[in-house]
Amino acid sequence: MRHGRTTLGILGGMGPLATAEFYRRLVRGTPAGRDQEHLPVLMWADPGVPDRTAALLGRGPSPVPAMVEGARWLSRAGATCLAVPCNTAHAFLGQVSRAAGVEVLDMVGAALAAAAGRAPGTRRIGVLATRGTRTAALYERAGHRLGLEVLQVCDRVQRECVDPAIRAVKAGSAGDAAERCIERAVHSLADRGAQAVIAACTEIPLVSGPAARVLPLTDSTDALVDLALARLWQAPRTSWQGTVTAG
Amino acid sequence: MRHGRTTLGILGGMGPLATAEFYRRLVRGTPAGRDQEHLPVLMWADPGVPDRTAALLGRGPSPVPAMVEGARWLSRAGATCLAVPCNTAHAFLGQVSRAAGVEVLDMVGAALAAAAGRAPGTRRIGVLATRGTRTAALYERAGHRLGLEVLQVCDRVQRECVDPAIRAVKAGSAGDAAERCIERAVHSLADRGAQAVIAACTEIPLVSGPAARVLPLTDSTDALVDLALARLWQAPRTSWQGTVTAG
Repeated sequence: MRHGRTTLGILGGMGPLATAEFYRRLVRGTPAGRDQEHLPVLMWADPGVPDRTAALLGRGPSPVPAMVEGARWLSRAGATCLAVPCNTAHAFLGQVSRAAGVEVLDMVGAALAAAAGRAPGTRRIGVLATRGTRTAALYERAGHRLGLEVLQVCDRVQRECVDPAIRAVKAGSAGDAAERCIERAVHSLADRGAQAVIAACTEIPLVSGPAARVLPLTDSTDALVDLALARLWQAPRTSWQGTVTAG
Repeated sequence: MRHGRTTLGILGGMGPLATAEFYRRLVRGTPAGRDQEHLPVLMWADPGVPDRTAALLGRGPSPVPAMVEGARWLSRAGATCLAVPCNTAHAFLGQVSRAAGVEVLDMVGAALAAAAGRAPGTRRIGVLATRGTRTAALYERAGHRLGLEVLQVCDRVQRECVDPAIRAVKAGSAGDAAERCIERAVHSLADRGAQAVIAACTEIPLVSGPAARVLPLTDSTDALVDLALARLWQAPRTSWQGTVTAG
């Protein structure tokens, strides 16, 4: 872009609705008084990127080549750094960042930092996520780097509560049953000592109303919006740099 | 993109919220059963594009060079055709399409066709728009091509009703007063024989609830979503090609 301003690249399409919701919240959350004060944004949303969870489970092709292609296009077009509004895709972002030579914002770290910041002394964070995000241990590893303990629900609660709730939302049935599932999952995390919880899958916030009364609930998409604005719209607000390291 | 599918390019940022809303409705409106069935989308959203209305009134620089830069990038990255979710920008799309060598979907024509299709025999279409869109006579000229009569509100109603309602929404005050303004504007169009009305500015649908009970109301953003899906997600549904001609 020609205006010499920092530009956000969105590597999206994983899935499309999460991407659209991220961009909408980014615009709504930007403290701009007029159009021209908003962030320049470039987006590459290819829903044909191979399934990330399948790849992590060894059951499908790697999404990395397609993601690198998108990251390179965004970088060449002038993106200062990239946002990827998909938790599971974060398992591949180190590779993508290195191959494309572009900085990628870390939604997982941002969500953990936001959850820990909800109240003083919060160190044990529960996570509600897809099986792909769990398998890659994304939150556990990021929590270790940040000095936070990450709790996942047990296999039974994942199977009986989290998976059915996500499936219900994807099928357009975001009703009471799914809300009760997520509430029960958060109760199980609270029973084990979690002080806060992260909705680390874009479907979950749609059915987390009752659950948010059990523990403070952080939406990972909101955390990525806040991080993008802090990095690009104004000077960084914290010393934590918030990018996926290429190491 | 690598998947050999048709790809939609969004030349956006004019303004950012209209762009975000267009993309969200595109995803919501896509009859896809899974992520991989959604349209691949590329977006170039530069809010720094010079003001279109100011250019049309001879009070500011042309937005064409910045729009051509974005259109070229989208085309080179693989966009099959472009959507521009801004009515006023349509005044420049012929130039942009020619300079960048890429097809641009015609939101103005799509909105008129959708409004005319609301009921048999609908030929007189009222339009609620910004002064920029009025000055460029975008709807009048497209209506002429489609054999439709286009009615604008009179200057007084524009000044006393439409302009204040748009300003109120932009300022975050989408309340009863703005709704009454738009309702009064639509009554004035109905009194002059309009059979349907187009909300040809992205702010207006937010305060058009009561007005939509006066005349059938078409949202131009929805018309662009429908056109994009008809052109790219499946075979065209009509013989009308719906693109801005480069002539």
